[in-house]
Amino acid sequence: MADYLAITGGVGGAKLALGLSHVLSPDEIAFAVNTGDDFEHLGLSISPDIDTLTYTLADLANRELGWGRQDETWAFMDTLERFGGETWFRLGDRDLALHAYRTQALRAGSTLTGVTAEICRKLGITQAVLPMSDDPVRTTILTPDGPLAFQHYFVRDRCRPAVTGFEFRGADQARLNPRIEALLPDLKGVIICPSNPFVSVDPLLSIGSTRALLAGLTAPVVAVSPIVGGTAIKGPTAKMMK
Amino acid sequence: MADYLAITGGVGGAKLALGLSHVLSPDEIAFAVNTGDDFEHLGLSISPDIDTLTYTLADLANRELGWGRQDETWAFMDTLERFGGETWFRLGDRDLALHAYRTQALRAGSTLTGVTAEICRKLGITQAVLPMSDDPVRTTILTPDGPLAFQHYFVRDRCRPAVTGFEFRGADQARLNPRIEALLPDLKGVIICPSNPFVSVDPLLSIGSTRALLAGLTAPVVAVSPIVGGTAIKGPTAKMMK
Repeated sequence: MADYLAITGGVGGAKLALGLSHVLSPDEIAFAVNTGDDFEHLGLSISPDIDTLTYTLADLANRELGWGRQDETWAFMDTLERFGGETWFRLGDRDLALHAYRTQALRAGSTLTGVTAEICRKLGITQAVLPMSDDPVRTTILTPDGPLAFQHYFVRDRCRPAVTGFEFRGADQARLNPRIEALLPDLKGVIICPSNPFVSVDPLLSIGSTRALLAGLTAPVVAVSPIVGGTAIKGPTAKMMK
Repeated sequence: MADYLAITGGVGGAKLALGLSHVLSPDEIAFAVNTGDDFEHLGLSISPDIDTLTYTLADLANRELGWGRQDETWAFMDTLERFGGETWFRLGDRDLALHAYRTQALRAGSTLTGVTAEICRKLGITQAVLPMSDDPVRTTILTPDGPLAFQHYFVRDRCRPAVTGFEFRGADQARLNPRIEALLPDLKGVIICPSNPFVSVDPLLSIGSTRALLAGLTAPVVAVSPIVGGTAIKGPTAKMMK
């Protein structure tokens, strides 16, 4: 049982998660990860935030790009482009292997929690990386031209559409990962990592009665602001906060 | 409307198909291709015989390997192997793009005939490449230890299990590709290419009343024997013929 639970999305949160992994032993910290960005693309089940976290913890993250994995090659994408396929979501040849591995495991009946644990084991990650839910929760961006799936808004359309609201489809019916729920009573603290509060943290808080569960804890719940040292966050998050 | 229809599977048939494409104009010849080997793997819809034919016609086939495409890289497979994923069916990084493109098109509602035509267009193939059916027909190898899906028998288990029979699951309910059926009355001839007669040609013949349709043609139906010049075919086909 972990002493601390860190709630995290992708890039920003993964950086604090990496720091936490350096100062806490593997059994002291567990990560609850946003799956609202998950989607199916080209037949593959893709979990961007989980992958960013696991690549970061395994020291496999691509630091130049800020996403994906290091030592990457792009033969798949180059060829897909020649076929006129959808190339807006950049999938490297090595990154693809992770998605194919997960897709096959899910189709064979594994839970997302199960296959994530298996991936962590293969990558040498000793902390618990827990998807926020094994049920689908899909972050949807509301725009004047209609709803957009998160990755379509964020990657394909490069955050250009005006945002009028967010929906976390499926959150009402989803169950908080039972392994996360089981940790809560004995925690010494909950850390909300500096991921996008609207689309990386709020999805988890919106699952069933999670917000009430956290509010009822005696342990402190600390949110690490994405505004650090007076410097406001940049990019899409800043745009959404307007 | 083509004058000749060539019924073909993968490697052996594709070689004759390539030859036919050299001596006949694109509108004189159409190819009816076995889809009994098709399968879903790692979330992707894979059509081995169609791909072997299209890669061959597009001069993209990998001649050293005898399967897959040329100028191939293997970062995906290498990485999948590290995850302990299923690597018995070798998927090159570039080959993967074709499967992902097809998978997405099928999920978006395209028929196999439609996406195959699209792929041919992208690869510069001007002949009609027609899947034998848009309905699933799955070649199943019967063995003393139970039935095996074709690729599991052929690739994963390297044709080691004893063969007691074949089933073409779905053939009774499948409809012969209407574009193939439409060609039949006006054909000057049907050529059965030298692909494996049991598992590459028979699946097409087993669809509904196809065998009767072909028997009723006034045009000649010529089977090019895989035993050429007194030299028996080798490998899996020879084993199956025993």
